[in-house]
Amino acid sequence: MDSKRLSRQIEFLVEIDRLKTIARQTLLVDGSRQEDSAEHSWHLALLAMVLAEHAKAPVDLFRVLKMILVHDIVEIDAGDTYCYDEEGNRGKAERENRAADRIFSLLPEDQEIEFRSLWEEFESKRTKDALFAAALDRLQPLLNNFRSGGIMWQKHAIRQEQVFLRNSPMGDGSPTLWDYAQRMIKDAIAKGWIAE
Amino acid sequence: MDSKRLSRQIEFLVEIDRLKTIARQTLLVDGSRQEDSAEHSWHLALLAMVLAEHAKAPVDLFRVLKMILVHDIVEIDAGDTYCYDEEGNRGKAERENRAADRIFSLLPEDQEIEFRSLWEEFESKRTKDALFAAALDRLQPLLNNFRSGGIMWQKHAIRQEQVFLRNSPMGDGSPTLWDYAQRMIKDAIAKGWIAE
Repeated sequence: MDSKRLSRQIEFLVEIDRLKTIARQTLLVDGSRQEDSAEHSWHLALLAMVLAEHAKAPVDLFRVLKMILVHDIVEIDAGDTYCYDEEGNRGKAERENRAADRIFSLLPEDQEIEFRSLWEEFESKRTKDALFAAALDRLQPLLNNFRSGGIMWQKHAIRQEQVFLRNSPMGDGSPTLWDYAQRMIKDAIAKGWIAE
Repeated sequence: MDSKRLSRQIEFLVEIDRLKTIARQTLLVDGSRQEDSAEHSWHLALLAMVLAEHAKAPVDLFRVLKMILVHDIVEIDAGDTYCYDEEGNRGKAERENRAADRIFSLLPEDQEIEFRSLWEEFESKRTKDALFAAALDRLQPLLNNFRSGGIMWQKHAIRQEQVFLRNSPMGDGSPTLWDYAQRMIKDAIAKGWIAE
């Protein structure tokens, strides 16, 4: 065994524990607290396992899962940027690139390349696997916001055009899920949880 | 689209959000709080991605990941049973079986069969994939306990023979990781975090 290689792998695995401390602007379904990015990543992975058949084009679920599992690791340094925070989203790409440089370089080089390329593929949203993963990354907070009573939409006074603009790319990954999501959004508007 | 099928899938995905509320007897590395079972599942999946090369026999990482992602879902009903709680562990199998009956049956039948069989394979610890997944499920709490200063071992007055008895099956999934873990345990004993 190459003990230096194992040590680097372990240091990376210890470092990413911090993803459990990154709070997102989404509540648990029971409304008890905000979810964190590690839980969110697990939940997304389960969405992928259950909903893969609804992808626009057949996806490689193994690659989708790996992409989802690493997609938020950069938030350890860059923080979670609320999708409706225009100011925060301006510097996001640069912050996340610096974070990827630091965090993935903890790994042995071959794994650094593999993990970084999974993350970049997710971010680029060009392959069918990435488009499906990105669609789930939009569906999951919608679902949690809706099932927890729309509290976060109301707290941030989110308007329907923002929600449609943010979420319509879901259709590129899964027209079926975007159709489902649109019905949910319309229902949330009817309930007064999303402003018209 | 079969909308009843999609509805069942969504209800399952909403139900399993509750795994984020199940507290484990392991602290985050920063010691700030106990981790929950959803975060733990995500962390284990990352251990699998990074450490697969150390498995005793070559594993199918895709199957290992799926097994890990579903392995704790039964805790939503059955709770997390602390590995050193002898009383709690007596009724564990029956509690978890009832939980699996209820929770996996929320899914469409084909997926219920798939998810249940992944969970049963993990529990049975007989295939090489399950043995490796189970090894990681022992390594991750050891790592978090060690890196957070051994507080949980001290709180529960855990003795070294309990730690060795609990963790030695790790060697069936990965002799390399069990070797690494044994050095960590000995270090924790030397520091007085685990009682002799």
